Amino acid sequence: MSLMRCDSLTVSVLMLAAAGGCAPQHRELRSGVMDTLNRQVDAWNKGDIDGFMDGYWRSDDLTFSTGGRVTRGWTATRDRYRTRYGSREKMGVLDFSDLEIRPIGRDAALVLGRWRLERQDGTPSGNFSLVMVKHSGRWLVVHDHTSSDEPPDPPSSN
Amino acid sequence: MSLMRCDSLTVSVLMLAAAGGCAPQHRELRSGVMDTLNRQVDAWNKGDIDGFMDGYWRSDDLTFSTGGRVTRGWTATRDRYRTRYGSREKMGVLDFSDLEIRPIGRDAALVLGRWRLERQDGTPSGNFSLVMVKHSGRWLVVHDHTSSDEPPDPPSSN
Repeated sequence: MSLMRCDSLTVSVLMLAAAGGCAPQHRELRSGVMDTLNRQVDAWNKGDIDGFMDGYWRSDDLTFSTGGRVTRGWTATRDRYRTRYGSREKMGVLDFSDLEIRPIGRDAALVLGRWRLERQDGTPSGNFSLVMVKHSGRWLVVHDHTSSDEPPDPPSSN
Repeated sequence: MSLMRCDSLTVSVLMLAAAGGCAPQHRELRSGVMDTLNRQVDAWNKGDIDGFMDGYWRSDDLTFSTGGRVTRGWTATRDRYRTRYGSREKMGVLDFSDLEIRPIGRDAALVLGRWRLERQDGTPSGNFSLVMVKHSGRWLVVHDHTSSDEPPDPPSSN
């Protein structure tokens, strides 16, 4: 987890209450978001999918998009993870990197980042876009759009 | 463009100012978002990539994620479209559907939807997640995460 951006341009255009730099409420936003993401990684790396899912909004309106499809609801999203990562070998060791936390008002944020799994059979990786909302004092993912890395375009692809 | 959701649960949890139903400011939000998306589709279907790009935030901080990669900035995003869709045949006829507009406060929204291109060589399709922000009276895409449809999982994939 290396990069967090909170530059004045992003802050101002995304319409935060205070202009310029990282004001205290934005530090709180960032620390709240990071707390949720760190807990997710820790849970995953203990083989605890339910703990990982604790970072998601426990609602039927949670949405998880990947590969052109949308999974709807916390339970269906958990079940998708359980099905795809049914063993410690399949879960591997998760790492998030290149995180960018862009506030949207006081109580919501857009979070971009990269994911990577270290597994015995390889290292799948990709990126994600999260919309996170502060809900009862906790920052939770209300929408997740995750992609896997694709091979680079061939030179003739235009 | 078929479905717009503005139910009371989404409204309340995404922390809109007024509780319950689609209040006037949310109708304005939805109409502003739809105006931008309709203009994008109209421009695309005239072969006008710059007109399509007019719906994106004209900033170096615009981000466009797909296939595990992030394109940064309005100009780089336009150039990506120009490279990939360099002819009317490659552009095809664009359609957006299954749109869901979820307000995030008064001046931002999460927009989910599906895209489809009718082309002579096939009909590529997928889905997208947009974060749109009202900026100088216009609703603009500040982040776009787009995916292509993948084939369904084989029954043995768990």
